[in-house]
Amino acid sequence: MERVPVLKIGDILLVSIQIDMEDQTALQLQEDLAEKIVATGCHGVIIDISALDIVDSFVGRTLATIAAVSRVLDAETVVVGMRPAVAITPVELGLSLPGIRTALNVDLGIEMLAFSRDGAWAEDAEDDENEADPAAVPTP
Amino acid sequence: MERVPVLKIGDILLVSIQIDMEDQTALQLQEDLAEKIVATGCHGVIIDISALDIVDSFVGRTLATIAAVSRVLDAETVVVGMRPAVAITPVELGLSLPGIRTALNVDLGIEMLAFSRDGAWAEDAEDDENEADPAAVPTP
Repeated sequence: MERVPVLKIGDILLVSIQIDMEDQTALQLQEDLAEKIVATGCHGVIIDISALDIVDSFVGRTLATIAAVSRVLDAETVVVGMRPAVAITPVELGLSLPGIRTALNVDLGIEMLAFSRDGAWAEDAEDDENEADPAAVPTP
Repeated sequence: MERVPVLKIGDILLVSIQIDMEDQTALQLQEDLAEKIVATGCHGVIIDISALDIVDSFVGRTLATIAAVSRVLDAETVVVGMRPAVAITPVELGLSLPGIRTALNVDLGIEMLAFSRDGAWAEDAEDDENEADPAAVPTP
């Protein structure tokens, strides 16, 4: 069985999906990722799908499950690298990709995770950084 | 033909090899990587082979070629994630993996690249920052 490696880069986990997702591969990936989130304490997961030719309902469901599992483990998921032609399929299939945030590439995905994490920190911690905007309106 | 995606993360390029290397795939990867080095001005390339079950002479030669091409384009290559069992094969085959530096994982590979780049910078530039911004690619 083929296995999708989970790479740790700083405090994010990166998964580059290049092989066709089958039931076993998808389950194994969910398990590996969950274990790695717990083992490393990472708060962000980036899934690159730039190698995928199509995002069908199975892939969409797999991504949604990964995002949901990660959220339970206090990690956010961003899906990056979706090709223009690929983006059309889930829309046509009526897949809403619930709970999945997307970014154009890995760099932007990392930015998105850093930004939302800073926001979360600002709420429950007092240590504001220079960059933190004091005028930012806290969400009620 | 399957294609291995080249991901840009800060000022390094990351390649996660998960599929069996065939002639066309390897050539395409070399080409994609060379183009991306030139397009982004990245100085570091990390190749993750944690998904590979074996490093035979073809894979070894491919990695060596990628490292050589990258060096010509002023980028250093580090191969990361080699599994313990996998490491035995190239030694037994007598492959010396010329010009290839290795690290245990992506984080250590990034450190290795940063360290050798800082060393190179210190020689020809005086402006040392406390924290080199990995996202900033100085265009000459």
